[in-house]
Amino acid sequence: MARTYLSAVERREQILDVAQELFFTKGFEATTVQDLMAAAGVSKGGFYHHFTAKEDVLEALSIRMAEQTLPLIQAVMETPGLSAFERLNEALGALRNFKQEQADGIVAAFATLLRAENIVLYDRINRANIRTVLPVFEAIIEAGRQDGSFTVPDARLAAQAILSLGSMTHDAVASAIEARTRPDRAAANAELKRALAWQGVVIDRILGLPDGSVRYVTPEFVDTLLPVQD
Amino acid sequence: MARTYLSAVERREQILDVAQELFFTKGFEATTVQDLMAAAGVSKGGFYHHFTAKEDVLEALSIRMAEQTLPLIQAVMETPGLSAFERLNEALGALRNFKQEQADGIVAAFATLLRAENIVLYDRINRANIRTVLPVFEAIIEAGRQDGSFTVPDARLAAQAILSLGSMTHDAVASAIEARTRPDRAAANAELKRALAWQGVVIDRILGLPDGSVRYVTPEFVDTLLPVQD
Repeated sequence: MARTYLSAVERREQILDVAQELFFTKGFEATTVQDLMAAAGVSKGGFYHHFTAKEDVLEALSIRMAEQTLPLIQAVMETPGLSAFERLNEALGALRNFKQEQADGIVAAFATLLRAENIVLYDRINRANIRTVLPVFEAIIEAGRQDGSFTVPDARLAAQAILSLGSMTHDAVASAIEARTRPDRAAANAELKRALAWQGVVIDRILGLPDGSVRYVTPEFVDTLLPVQD
Repeated sequence: MARTYLSAVERREQILDVAQELFFTKGFEATTVQDLMAAAGVSKGGFYHHFTAKEDVLEALSIRMAEQTLPLIQAVMETPGLSAFERLNEALGALRNFKQEQADGIVAAFATLLRAENIVLYDRINRANIRTVLPVFEAIIEAGRQDGSFTVPDARLAAQAILSLGSMTHDAVASAIEARTRPDRAAANAELKRALAWQGVVIDRILGLPDGSVRYVTPEFVDTLLPVQD
């Protein structure tokens, strides 16, 4: 590929673009730095100017992906006149809408991430995600702690507890994605709905709310991401 | 090093022994397959007979480490005459005692695991741990779900929620370990105690119990692992 002259910032973004493409098609383990350089049309010197290793590209890519959702929940933070409880529901709704709108890309990404050989990629993206959204959830919970709507001793610890719950639905997500082209996909979707409904209840309980208070999933969420009808 | 003739099982264990030593001293990323072969005194053919790659050694090592705690909680499962709630407390107590008895080794292991370059090692061991203890916690919670002492719709999902909480105290553990030789170590220990106490409350709430029901940490636990007095 002929080399294109890009600014340093553009070049870095372009390397991340090809890394995103290759990590999600070939897989993280199977992609080499050589593959990244070839796909980006960048020299060894050019590559190592931006990144020290493939791991480093992964880290930057994870952060970039996590930061895509940040404006959505920041908009919720800036909406005036909401109670802390409403703000929490709106923030969860914004993340849910984002996933529904990007359904094809998200399902393809997860189908790759949940393969055993891509576990490193999955864990990195998950960590970057938690680190990125933590301050916003902490701020929402702190407002609710102060006005007495949430019964938690510490907003940061409560946000960490809630965000750490992602891994509890990992198996159900993996099963539903794996089953998405099989005849038993409706059953796998039903299992996932049950797991996500319970995750919502756990969020309620962590915040000291009655079961069913927080709107974590909607009835149509799973079937929008993983359609049962063709 | 002269090659020692070991059975296939002994050889595999020995490779895991040197891997454990090297991963926790040099670090996972910095250790090469060449390093492992040299330290174990095993040929390339001998190494690849047992493992396909360094990642594969890590996976096996993570499972071996996780399985060390299994007999402890299985003993609790076999203790007759305990209620589900007592069994849960005993199982948590067995894991806590194990950590206290192995304090030096555990702190050294975590000091390595929590370094940014060993994040892959940390995530793998954490996953292997969860996978290993999940069936036991599920069985305990199922007994309590049936006798009505725990209010959860599904024991497996409840166990997954509780075991996924480990990552919520990750930062506090890392800070306390980092501070263990510094003058401000008492403050870092106090933060960790607060985080662990909250983790115990979250377990209560997930199970539908009043705050403070489950004995997740003891007052002396953190100071036993990370002594404030020399």
